[in-house]
Parts: sequence; C-alpha cells; structure tokens
Amino acid sequence: MKDLKQELLSMVGDDLAEIEVALKDNLNPYLDLVSDVAKHILFAGGKRLRPLLMVLSARVCGYKGGYDKVFSTIFEYLHAATLLHDDVIDGAQLRRGRPVANSLWKNSSVVLTGDFLLARGLSIAAATKKPSIIKIVAEITESMSQGEIEQLLRKGDVSITEEEYRKVIWRKTAVLFHGACKISARLANSSKREENAISNYGKNLGLAFQMVDDLLDYTLDTKALGKGVGADLKEGKVTLPVIYALKQADSKDRLKMESIIKNKKFSGSNFKLLITLLEKYGGISYTDQCAKDHVKQAKDSLLVFKPSKTRDILEFIADYTLLRKS
Amino acid sequence: MKDLKQELLSMVGDDLAEIEVALKDNLNPYLDLVSDVAKHILFAGGKRLRPLLMVLSARVCGYKGGYDKVFSTIFEYLHAATLLHDDVIDGAQLRRGRPVANSLWKNSSVVLTGDFLLARGLSIAAATKKPSIIKIVAEITESMSQGEIEQLLRKGDVSITEEEYRKVIWRKTAVLFHGACKISARLANSSKREENAISNYGKNLGLAFQMVDDLLDYTLDTKALGKGVGADLKEGKVTLPVIYALKQADSKDRLKMESIIKNKKFSGSNFKLLITLLEKYGGISYTDQCAKDHVKQAKDSLLVFKPSKTRDILEFIADYTLLRKS
Repeated sequence: MKDLKQELLSMVGDDLAEIEVALKDNLNPYLDLVSDVAKHILFAGGKRLRPLLMVLSARVCGYKGGYDKVFSTIFEYLHAATLLHDDVIDGAQLRRGRPVANSLWKNSSVVLTGDFLLARGLSIAAATKKPSIIKIVAEITESMSQGEIEQLLRKGDVSITEEEYRKVIWRKTAVLFHGACKISARLANSSKREENAISNYGKNLGLAFQMVDDLLDYTLDTKALGKGVGADLKEGKVTLPVIYALKQADSKDRLKMESIIKNKKFSGSNFKLLITLLEKYGGISYTDQCAKDHVKQAKDSLLVFKPSKTRDILEFIADYTLLRKS
Repeated sequence: MKDLKQELLSMVGDDLAEIEVALKDNLNPYLDLVSDVAKHILFAGGKRLRPLLMVLSARVCGYKGGYDKVFSTIFEYLHAATLLHDDVIDGAQLRRGRPVANSLWKNSSVVLTGDFLLARGLSIAAATKKPSIIKIVAEITESMSQGEIEQLLRKGDVSITEEEYRKVIWRKTAVLFHGACKISARLANSSKREENAISNYGKNLGLAFQMVDDLLDYTLDTKALGKGVGADLKEGKVTLPVIYALKQADSKDRLKMESIIKNKKFSGSNFKLLITLLEKYGGISYTDQCAKDHVKQAKDSLLVFKPSKTRDILEFIADYTLLRKS
C-alpha cells in the first residue's frame, strides 16, 4: 500500500508541488484570522485529490493554457469550505487527526471563513472568463449544500434506501469530482465526447471515493482514519454497508442492528457486533463491490482518450481509490 | 413618514411586485426544507432595497435587456444568506420582528441554506454571461464575509476608531449596494463615467444606510425595530455613535460609558444613561450628520445622469434612507 502511494507520488509529485504553491498564492485574504482558519483546514495533509484530478483531466483533454494549477484551487477551496461548515454542524472533534477548526476558533469565524473560501473559489472560477464554467462551479455549491442538508434530514433514519443514499453521495461528494473533470474539458475546448467521458470518469470516481470513505468507518482504527471509528454512525449517518445489511437481515438481526444504530452512544462491543452483522449480511462486501463497479466505469470512460502517461495516471488513481486506508 | 413610504411605493410598486415574483421564481431548491428556511428569511417583510437599487440603476444607465428583475435577485439572495449566517453567529432572537430561522430550524440547516443562497446568487450572476460581473459578485461575498469577521474580532473593543468602523461597514454592507449599482452599469454597457457615478451612489447610500441602522439601535423602541433595543451593543458591536462620544467625552464620562458597554447585561436605566451621554457628546448628531453627508454625496453622483423620473426616484431613496424608522 505504501509502495503504491509512493508510486503515485512519483508520477504526480511535481503537479502536487505546484498545486501547493497555487493554494497558498491564491488564498489572498486581508484578515490574518481568515488566513489562519483557512490554512488550518487547507494545509493539514489533505490529499489534493480534487485539484489533482482537474490538472490531470485538463492535461488528458489537451489543455495548454497554463492556468490549470490556479483553476484547480477552486475545487480545494470549495472542498475546504464544506469541511469547515460540516465540522461546525457535525460537532466532530477530529479531522485528519487534528482538532477541528471550531475547537480552536469560534464557530462564527469558522462559518465566515467557509463563506470566504466558497466566494474565493467562485472568484477564481470567474477568472476563467467562461460563464459556462462559472455556472458549473456555482451549481456544484448549490448541489453540495443541498446534499449535506439531505444527509442531515435523514440522520438516524434506518429506512433510507440505497437509491436515496446514492443521490446524497452524488450531491455531496461526486458532483465536485464530476465538476472538476467537466470544467477541465471546457477549459481545453474538448469535444462533447471527450467532455462526457472525463465527466463520467469524475462522477464514478467520486461515487467510489465516497463509498470507500463510508466503508472506512467500519474497517479502520482511529489513528489511520484521523477521526473516531464509527464516527459517521455516531452522527447518525446511515451509509451503504448498513443500508444493504439491514435490507438483507432477518427480522431479529435487523432489530439488533437498529437498536445499536439508534443508541448513538453504543459501546465498543456493540459496535463490533454491528460489524459482524454487516459482514454476515454482506453489507461490507456489497459496498466494496459497488465501489469497484464505479472504478471500472471510471476507467472504461478513459478509453475515449488515446493512451498516454496522463491516462495511465488517471487509471492508477481510480484503482488507488479502492485501496486507500485514509 | 408613512406618507413618504406610500409615495415611494407608488413610484416603485410595479418594480417591487416584479422583484417579488423573480425572488420566488429563481429560488429553485429541490429540497422543501431549503425552500422553507430560505422563504422564512426572504419573505419576511424585507425592504427589497438591494434588488430595487439594481433595477433602478440599470434603468438610469439605459439597460434594455429585460433581465433586470432576474439579476436583481442576486443581491437579495446574497443579503439573505448573510442574514442567515449572522443570526446563527450572533445568537439574536428576533429578526424583522419574527423569530430568527435558527430558533425554528437547526443551525446546520440554516448554515447550509445560507450556503445554498450564496451559490444561487452566484449561479444567477453566471447567467449574465459576463465574467466581469460574476467576478464582482464573488468579490462582494469575499468582502462581506471578511467584514463580518472583522466586526466579530472587534466585539466589545472600545478602542475601535472611526476609520476602522468605516472600513467594517464598507465591507459588510456598502460593498453590496455598490456592487448592485456597478453591475447595473456593466449590464447596460455604460460609459466609465456613468459606471463610476452610479457605483459611487451605491457606495454612499450603503454607508448612510448602515449608519442610520446603527443609530436606530439607540433611538427606537423594540416594536418598530423588530429586534431588542440596544441589541447591537449587547452583542458588543461598538458603532459610530459610541465611537464618537467616547472620543469626545471627559475621562469620567468615558469610564461610565465603557463600564455600561462592557457589562453586556446592562439595565434599562443604564442604557438610558448611555443614550444621554451619547447625546451629550454629540455621538448621535455626529452619526446623523455623517449619514447626511453620504446621502448628499450619493445624490451629487446622480448629476452625471440626465434628469429623469428614475433619477428622481434614486434621489428620493437616498433622502428616504435618512428618515427610515425600521
């Protein structure tokens, strides 16, 4: 696993270094506090997956404009904005193994810095001078805010269906991946065929990414995940492993699972029992298979493009998504 | 006063009616909850001053495109977004005489509906297909979020200077008025001279508007203001009437004022004493004079435009700003 990460870094290290510089150079607040809060979330070991996807998608689409790194910051700023607002809302304590911003600063400063980052992302989108691109960025934000609300509305709701879950993860996560890729094609003035292909890659990658993320809540220890295990469940987030297992379970086991889920202060032994039941009814393996299917669809979409080193890297990232442990 | 309001309504009633329709038609969320929260703040008797300014500015600049009402919603949506986030942050109980959204819904839903409204405003800006306009809208949001943070940072700080106060009210309030007017000129493809004139009108109107707003905290009863009298001061907002009076006061009275301000649970009689001191040292009359100066500058800016009914209405609105009681 570590070797794969090293291999990926050797392929995209230069891009990542330039993205880091762009993220620092384009932040540009006039208040130190905004800078401090924004940097706390922006420079805390994030994977830079979203900006990296944009840069690589632009390259595979033949973009030569020279502003790919600048525009890629849009997607990290929007992502960081949602993390800041989520942390205020969720009441979680840890993010990426560090205290959440709102444990170090007031909620107010964190909410408003989130607003600043949203606006910053849109300002940079405006610098593309392409209204259709700016529209996509604004729509991403509309979608993400509503996806988050939908998730909140369904908190603790064990009746949520797989279809509803898929809509939520599309809106709250995959829309941003999809948008980063789609905008790259627009920047490169690609054909509709290429635009659809790379957008489809982004969408499926985003769905797989979120499914893997949801799986990690049941499969990792706290240290590797950077937040408490079972954290999603404690917040009442009912995700695919649970949705599927509940549907498959006999009524006795379903009641057992539901009672653990509804008691948000479940014990370690109850959480272990829940995982055993998720495994018994195939919730873990089904979710894993769904993620794999989306990765396959993502990779298949890339076949529209001629073979190239960049296409290989995009394929590698898709495979890597399935293997990540944090 | 009531007659003036009636007079204004007779001049802009048709525009306001069309703005109401546009605000409903362009909101467009897919979640009922977002719709409910957004409508709670959007349709609670707001004055629609910002969209109205945009519509009238566009008209005085000769805009004939037919989308003025649609684009005017940008400024009400952005304004509503900041109100939602402010209410979560401030912990106030009333807004426009009604319970704040976050007393009826969860903070999370209110924060995220604010995000949705920000994004909605930017989506509609993108529909202008003019990147320079979209950039202005994004920059307004950057500025407002930082203006709010700056105000929070200075909470309860009696050392804030008039210059610093002016910067804060420019960023948190006047930037939006200025932007609404500036964008109108851009939509109308006005000359730079006209663009500067109408932008200057908006800026000065915004500054006057905020100064009058800050005065109302010391001069009105709760019912007329729709929130508790002295509410700003209870939140630690040190505004121009106080800043000026503190600077003019002898050391004994200054200490008296400072002790009232620092004790956020001040009694009614202490608040009355404070107002007496604000009057004694000219804080009320100075702020009133500053607002009048800005209104004069706003009206002078309009002289660039030929006399017209629309120019008259813009002048009327400037004068009306000084007289408003809510």
